Amino acid sequence: MANFVPQKVFADREKRIKNYLEENDFEALIVTTPENFYMVTGFHLDVAPWERPVAAVIPADGDPFLIMNELSTNHLKFAEERKTLYIKDYEIYLEHPRAYPRTYTVEQWGRLLAEKLRSRGIDGGFFAVEGGGPAPLKTEMENVAFVDVSGYLRDLRMVKYPEELKIFRLCAEITDFAQDRYMELVKPGLTVQAFDFEIAKIMSEEAARRFPEDRWEGRVRSSSGKYSAAPHGSGAYVAEQFQEGDGVVNIIIGRLNGLVVESERTLFVGDPRSEIQVRAYEAATAANEAAAAEMYAGNTVANADAAAQQVIEKAGFGENINHRTGHGIGIAGHEFPEDMAFLYRPFWENEVYSSEPGIYLYDVGGFRQDDTVIVGKDKPEVITKRSKKLEDQIAKNF
Amino acid sequence: MANFVPQKVFADREKRIKNYLEENDFEALIVTTPENFYMVTGFHLDVAPWERPVAAVIPADGDPFLIMNELSTNHLKFAEERKTLYIKDYEIYLEHPRAYPRTYTVEQWGRLLAEKLRSRGIDGGFFAVEGGGPAPLKTEMENVAFVDVSGYLRDLRMVKYPEELKIFRLCAEITDFAQDRYMELVKPGLTVQAFDFEIAKIMSEEAARRFPEDRWEGRVRSSSGKYSAAPHGSGAYVAEQFQEGDGVVNIIIGRLNGLVVESERTLFVGDPRSEIQVRAYEAATAANEAAAAEMYAGNTVANADAAAQQVIEKAGFGENINHRTGHGIGIAGHEFPEDMAFLYRPFWENEVYSSEPGIYLYDVGGFRQDDTVIVGKDKPEVITKRSKKLEDQIAKNF
Repeated sequence: MANFVPQKVFADREKRIKNYLEENDFEALIVTTPENFYMVTGFHLDVAPWERPVAAVIPADGDPFLIMNELSTNHLKFAEERKTLYIKDYEIYLEHPRAYPRTYTVEQWGRLLAEKLRSRGIDGGFFAVEGGGPAPLKTEMENVAFVDVSGYLRDLRMVKYPEELKIFRLCAEITDFAQDRYMELVKPGLTVQAFDFEIAKIMSEEAARRFPEDRWEGRVRSSSGKYSAAPHGSGAYVAEQFQEGDGVVNIIIGRLNGLVVESERTLFVGDPRSEIQVRAYEAATAANEAAAAEMYAGNTVANADAAAQQVIEKAGFGENINHRTGHGIGIAGHEFPEDMAFLYRPFWENEVYSSEPGIYLYDVGGFRQDDTVIVGKDKPEVITKRSKKLEDQIAKNF
Repeated sequence: MANFVPQKVFADREKRIKNYLEENDFEALIVTTPENFYMVTGFHLDVAPWERPVAAVIPADGDPFLIMNELSTNHLKFAEERKTLYIKDYEIYLEHPRAYPRTYTVEQWGRLLAEKLRSRGIDGGFFAVEGGGPAPLKTEMENVAFVDVSGYLRDLRMVKYPEELKIFRLCAEITDFAQDRYMELVKPGLTVQAFDFEIAKIMSEEAARRFPEDRWEGRVRSSSGKYSAAPHGSGAYVAEQFQEGDGVVNIIIGRLNGLVVESERTLFVGDPRSEIQVRAYEAATAANEAAAAEMYAGNTVANADAAAQQVIEKAGFGENINHRTGHGIGIAGHEFPEDMAFLYRPFWENEVYSSEPGIYLYDVGGFRQDDTVIVGKDKPEVITKRSKKLEDQIAKNF
């Protein structure tokens, strides 16, 4: 049984969007970027809109429709076959000249959009859009005004449906599985990047066993030894190998049917070689737990960042923090809100965040535990469950 | 010996940019997006600028500098250590509140940029920027005007230096190696996505052997059987397995020190099961070669697309083309020009393109050979050399 976001979630979202459009006197919502496109259609966009523009249109009144690039032709048919395409009415424009049958080319996609809008009885007015809105529509419709509603769409994306939270939990279980295999298989002398592909492969096989018909994207990326002091890798050294005594920070990302989970662990290849590694490990772990504990509805978002910082400062590593404590997660890996450290609004129930405060010592390495956390009504739900106890994070199978 | 783009390339680019700025009376160029940032600095950006804004500034007169997010602190130090950071003067702002030592936070990054500009004797004027330019700078400097020079930067990126072409060739050799291993190892019953990770791992190990200190990013993505009829995958079915008689389209991407090569091959897992597979294979291959043959300086870009289409139409598959024949490649995988089919300017010497016309039959599968091609003065140089002969693309090692 496949685990895609159920169609009733999209139906409910459409209803809420239509209410919003009516309340604000918009003729339609036009969505043009991958994350928001996924949110309203359930369709994994297989093209980049900067080169192949798309539009998902939800009129205030009447049926929604899509404008798509020809590259997606069969991808759309596959989505129809497996019943995951919520908006089934779509038009396709071409990016190459076709002698027969003739139809709109990429330069005319704005005209196609305008004509489809007119077929819905819409010939101008205020459109709710992202950013500046689709420029070609302006030349095609005389009485059009665009209003940027990116903020509204962002809010809509931040709070998840219970059906989506189920998918997050299933996805987190796969990342836990991968963390366990990682700890069993890591050893000195292995090439770090190649090992990451090995774990990604094992994780993919497990996803295939559990959810054969689903969409799965997985990624593993580790930094070891001194290079783990840069949170996103060294920028070079493809031949970097694990050495005994190294601290390692791994990043394991899963995306099950469009919804992302982050699991990151600090671990050691054999016993840590210095006392400071242990101290930084314990501080990063305590900070991770302190931040997660703040993630309940009504608490101020920045308090989670503050709680982690307090723990790290008390442990004497205050000057070795190189980033905020976390960020929203959802359809994209890094999502809004992205300004956790300076965000004074309350947490909302059913938001999803990373909790990942880090400590970075230039000559020693990095220390970061990253959990994916669902904001609960009264308390947080940490869905990535791999142990963070030091003894469980010292690899010895070699 | 590492194979990064040599510093003299960046020095020459800086000189050319300064000439451009002077000729057009700009005070400075401000670059804010990853690809252009890489082009002028040689620094692999480890953050996404939508959440962590950066700026590389080249004044018309005086030394260039960077404004960076604290997350990149140690990443910058590693780049300095290995001498790949061309612009060495940088300032860092914070994304979390630090009690001591105090400095600019993310909300103030525009002020930091303004003050650094003033320290260079620049207090306003016309700035060459991408898109709308960094908005916070407007509130910090009263007499600022932004001019979008994205087109100029695009052109600068399209034509490669000979030193960069060398890196493309080395990268292509690794993708050839991976294509060979792919053909040796593919067999019925393997899970497609897991197999892709296996090949990515083998490719990474080879990159580590050849270029231990370099930056390497590799990606493999295959579609098999009927699902290969969607050029960018089915959107689901993580458990999809290779079946005997299936056609497969693989995508093997390498990025060596920031420069991308695409190699894609159609292959069969055992003998093809139908005559139409063979016909479509031969047509796609002939189209790929016809397009590549047009890629020499002075010829019209759209002619390459037209040549491929002509071959495919003649073979009776004209209605099964679902995308243009190719696109520019460089620092990004899909680069400008992205509108090959409708682009009537001449090819420029030392541009790099993909040649990848495709045929997509909904119930049968996809057929596409993709080579990376350097536009030569008189003739094209195809740098991805894996055979496209049908007999070499029928896997039988099982």
